[in-house]
Order: sequence, then structure tokens, then C-alpha cells
Amino acid sequence: MSVRGDPFGRHRVVEPKGKLPQPAWKLDNDTTKLYDNEMLIEVIKLNVDAASFTQIKNEVGLDEKKIAERIMQIVRERGKLHNPVTGSGGMLIGIVKMIGKDLNVDVKVGDKIATLVSLSLTPLNLKKIKKVYLDRDQVDVEGEAILFETGVFARLPEDMPESVALAILDVAGAPIQTARLVSPSDLVLVIGAGGKSGVLCCYVAKKYAGPTGKVVALVHSERSVSELEKLGFVDDVFVSDAQEAVGSYEKFLQITRGRLADVVINVVNVPDTEMTSILCARERGKVYFFSMATSFTKAALGAEGIGKDVDMIIGNGYAKNHAEFALKIVRENPKLYELFLERYGEK
Amino acid sequence: MSVRGDPFGRHRVVEPKGKLPQPAWKLDNDTTKLYDNEMLIEVIKLNVDAASFTQIKNEVGLDEKKIAERIMQIVRERGKLHNPVTGSGGMLIGIVKMIGKDLNVDVKVGDKIATLVSLSLTPLNLKKIKKVYLDRDQVDVEGEAILFETGVFARLPEDMPESVALAILDVAGAPIQTARLVSPSDLVLVIGAGGKSGVLCCYVAKKYAGPTGKVVALVHSERSVSELEKLGFVDDVFVSDAQEAVGSYEKFLQITRGRLADVVINVVNVPDTEMTSILCARERGKVYFFSMATSFTKAALGAEGIGKDVDMIIGNGYAKNHAEFALKIVRENPKLYELFLERYGEK
Repeated sequence: MSVRGDPFGRHRVVEPKGKLPQPAWKLDNDTTKLYDNEMLIEVIKLNVDAASFTQIKNEVGLDEKKIAERIMQIVRERGKLHNPVTGSGGMLIGIVKMIGKDLNVDVKVGDKIATLVSLSLTPLNLKKIKKVYLDRDQVDVEGEAILFETGVFARLPEDMPESVALAILDVAGAPIQTARLVSPSDLVLVIGAGGKSGVLCCYVAKKYAGPTGKVVALVHSERSVSELEKLGFVDDVFVSDAQEAVGSYEKFLQITRGRLADVVINVVNVPDTEMTSILCARERGKVYFFSMATSFTKAALGAEGIGKDVDMIIGNGYAKNHAEFALKIVRENPKLYELFLERYGEK
Repeated sequence: MSVRGDPFGRHRVVEPKGKLPQPAWKLDNDTTKLYDNEMLIEVIKLNVDAASFTQIKNEVGLDEKKIAERIMQIVRERGKLHNPVTGSGGMLIGIVKMIGKDLNVDVKVGDKIATLVSLSLTPLNLKKIKKVYLDRDQVDVEGEAILFETGVFARLPEDMPESVALAILDVAGAPIQTARLVSPSDLVLVIGAGGKSGVLCCYVAKKYAGPTGKVVALVHSERSVSELEKLGFVDDVFVSDAQEAVGSYEKFLQITRGRLADVVINVVNVPDTEMTSILCARERGKVYFFSMATSFTKAALGAEGIGKDVDMIIGNGYAKNHAEFALKIVRENPKLYELFLERYGEK
């Protein structure tokens, strides 16, 4: 009997039938049956998407138990950790427990991997949440997950703590896209530069903009200012509320003496920052929205509303070799690695 | 006394204070006072955004009176025609009634213009709705509107009916962006090709893909098939439900004998078509989302979920010279003009 599932995972969609797993409301998370082209993972840790984790914290408060309950509830309802408000997920690390016989993959049972597809489409069966890390969007869990045939994953590197690798891999799409977008001499503005994708993007932006280019960082708190100054690869950093479009724009212009950005990279984890990004970009400049809190209509109509001819790009969480690239840049810069170790290393 | 308003229109924002007019919930639509850098327009006709008009029709039914009531209600509540469900607006035509003394514009009182900024940020004071055109997303109205200093508008051309010009100008962003994205020999898929931006994009795509390129049209109904075949500038057209991602993808592959699209242009006016667009694009291909029904997270996570390395672009309603370009392409192709006249000309 053939028990081969759909390569995209449609065989696990409960509701609405026929949809792909990501847009679907509910997935079948029964991990006792494994299709021949699926992989079963024993889950160790979830890295919740920043926008989702922030939303949950805002909803239930800074309480580990309540956050755990809310996460359990979402997974019970949907068969996946797909935040119904933000629409986003996150990723996981775990150990390969079983490999369907029709699956041709370069891992074996017992290997430790990170999934690089969103939790918003990954069937997840949570037994319990053992610990919530309020300050780094991660939770330790007991449970199982399913990876589909088209699912992307990476073996965890052995030269760094797994919580650090997970934090880097979670935002692996952003730095490689930054490398594609930034050219020598560009003026680059990174909005939300204090966050983990922010610092990675700043580093890559400076690397590709070069000595004649300029990278400016917009951050939310004074603490991020000193962190970024210590890292040493941004040319300027300023504190502003990215939701205050005109105020942020005026501060940016003061720093650059009236020059607008060639490339704006938005990696903020709160909504309503589209206009700041658009205002700060030059005519025919590029705005890269990596934040899951971005609203499509606010961006599209916002640019139109002020007659701004900019190219706006939707942050794709996947790009060829993105995981290797993200790990590589952290390895090549000791200060960057130090920061990730400090923020995400197991204490 | 200076009564100069903010160039972006923040002085008209009632709630929440300090926001820009587009993201704001409510605007001050008092047209009896005019700031020195504003223009007062006597509104003749609204062209409601297709996604918004479809949503309203689905909500209240195909009833002219109920649609009119719903539009009046939105404008009463928000001071602008900003559909709270779709987040989109539309545009208007009207006659310049008064020009603030600080405004330096190339029109005079009495000129007929179309605003090229979204109704979602345009203060609108509707007295009444005189007629609803169910089949072309337009309504005839009595009322007044305000254009801000940064607002974009175009004088209405004299060589075509105003309802036709309005229909073209409403989607002026799409064809010029298509011209920027398509290169010779490209395989282009236009999803929602039967709609007005669809036919414009098909024409432009074929023009720039050239004789060695190929333009394939996905449409919703058989009627659109015969229309597009009569127009003669698409290489292939097929009927499919764009919300059925895998089914549409399989049909597309059959037509192209397994080749994926270099450029996918999505101009569908219903939600949940992101995955169809992503599946049909080749690795490193481009997906251009012009539809206001696009979800940012569904696109971003959808591509990641199947490990597809595509560039996804948010349709900007504005581009330099977009209005002139859109009118020009309709003028240069008699069959296209004929179609617009038939669909949008006053009977």
C-alpha cells in the first residue's frame, strides 16, 4: 500500500481541504502515522517568530506560564504554531526520529537539525512546554513535528551552541537578501537594527556598501546604540520610534544631511512602520520589508499616497544557501559572534 | 495668519493623532475650510478599488442601494473611502474648485482632473451617491474632496470618455511596472488577466517580452478567454481558479511544457492567490503582486514554506509618468481602446 503524501503537504490539511499547509487553518498533526515522503522530528526547541512572540507577550503579559498556555492553545487549535493574529510562525530544532522510505535526504536518524520552513506550515504535536525564554523568543518543548518532502532544513553546526545557531537560522533570509540588494557606495538605512536580523543586516550592508558607502541604524532604545557602536560596523546610529514616520524621517535627514537612502531594510517586529521606510528611501530606491508585521496595503498605498517611486520587496524567508551564508557571516566576525553568544547562548 | 497644512496631510488626521492620513483611522473631511497648500475638488465620480468593491458586493449583495449605503457609511465613519476590510480605496475624478494660495500646481479652477493618490488617504465629504455601476466598480456622486500638497493628480485627457480614462488611471501603476520587469524572451504569466489591469499588463508584457517571449494568461471565466483571444496579444490563455494553487500550477505547466515563468504578475481581485503566483515562478524569477488582496505574510511564508527563491515585489500604485504611460498604451492599440470603451464607456 502506498502511503506517499503530497510533496507540498496537502495530505495533512484538515481545513479547508485542498489548500496548501501554510494558508490552511488546521493541519493533521498525528505523528503516530508517517507518510513515506515525510520526516518525523523529535522537537527540542521552538524559535517563535519575533512578531508573533511580541504579539503573544502583549496579549497575555510577560508571564512564562501564560505564554506557554497560549502557545499550547494555538497548536491544539491549528495543529501548527501559526499565530492567528500575525500570521507568522517561527522554526524549530530537533532530532531526526524517522525518515519515510521515499524520502531522499542527506541526514540520518539521530542527527540534530533545524527546520528552515515556517512553523506556520509544520504539523506540530506538543506534549508540553518546559521553559519559556522571555528575552529571546525561544521555548524548550517536548513534542514531535513533521517535515514534508519540499521542506527545507539544515544540520546544526557543531561549532556553536544550538540556541545560538537557532537564533541565526531563524532570520537567515534577511542577511543574504541584503547582500543581493546593496551595492558599493550605497547609503543604507536599517530600521530595527538592534534586533538579531538587524545586526546581521547592518554587518552585511556595510560589507557590501564598502568604505565609500554608509550604513545608518535606526534603533528603539539607547541600549542598542551602545551595542551597535561597540560592534563598530555602522556609520551612524540613532534612536527613534519607527512608528512615527515623519519624526523618524526628519532625524534621518539630519544625520545624512538631506540625502535619502538607496536601500532601506525594515526588520522591525512591530506594525505600522511602512511609511518610515518609504519616506526615508530615495526616488527609485529599494525598500526591503523583512518584518512579518508588514502590511501589504499600507506599503502599497502608502507609497502611492505620497507619490514615491520606490521598489518594495517582500522579504522571502528562503534563498539558496541562506543558512550557510548566515552562519558564515557570524563566524567571520568575532564581535558579532560574541553578541549572539551573549544574547542567545545557554547560560 | 498662516493656515498652511502639513505637506503629507497630517493636519487632517483626527485619529490617531500624528499618523499619516493613509494609516490613520479617521480624517477631518470638513471641506468648508481649505488650508493654503490644499486643493478643493468637486467630486463627480469615484472609482472604487476592485478588491474593495468586490468585498462590499460580497458583504451587502448585488444591490445598488445597499452598496451606496455601505459606501456612505464608510465615508461617514472615516472621513475617507477607506474600506476597513481590504484596507484599500480607489480614486476619483472631479473639477478643481479652489486652489490654496501656497500651492504651486499646473491646473486652474474649472479643470477636470483625476486624483492619482488612493481614496484611502483623501478627505472626502459625500453629499450623495447618484448611481452605482455594478459592473465597473464606479459610482457617480455629489461631494467634495481635498488633495494635499504631496498628492498626485492628472488632468483628464480630452480624447476619451472620462469613465474610460478613470478606469485606466485607476490601475496606472501596473502596466509601467510590468514594462520595468519584463525582458525580451521572458515567459510571463498574468494571473487575473481578464480584469482591466490584467489586459493592460498582458499587452505591455507581450510588447517587452517580444516575439521570442511568451505571455500566458490565467483567467477566471470563459468570457475572458474569448476577449483575450480577440485582443490577440497573449500567446496562451487558460481558465483556472487562482485560489487553487496546485491545480493552477499543473495547468500552467501543461501549457508551457514544464517551463516555469520568469515573471508572474498577479492582478487578481480576490485573496489567497499568493501560492499560485509563487509556484508558477521559476527559481530566481520575479513575482509582482499588484492586487490589493495580497497578504504579506502569506507571500513571505508561502515562498519560504516550499523553499522557493523568488523575488516578490509589492505593487506600488505610483511610478514616475505612470498615468501618461497607461493612457499611451491604450491609445496605441485600437483593440485595447475598443475593449475599454465597451466596458467603461458611458452607454
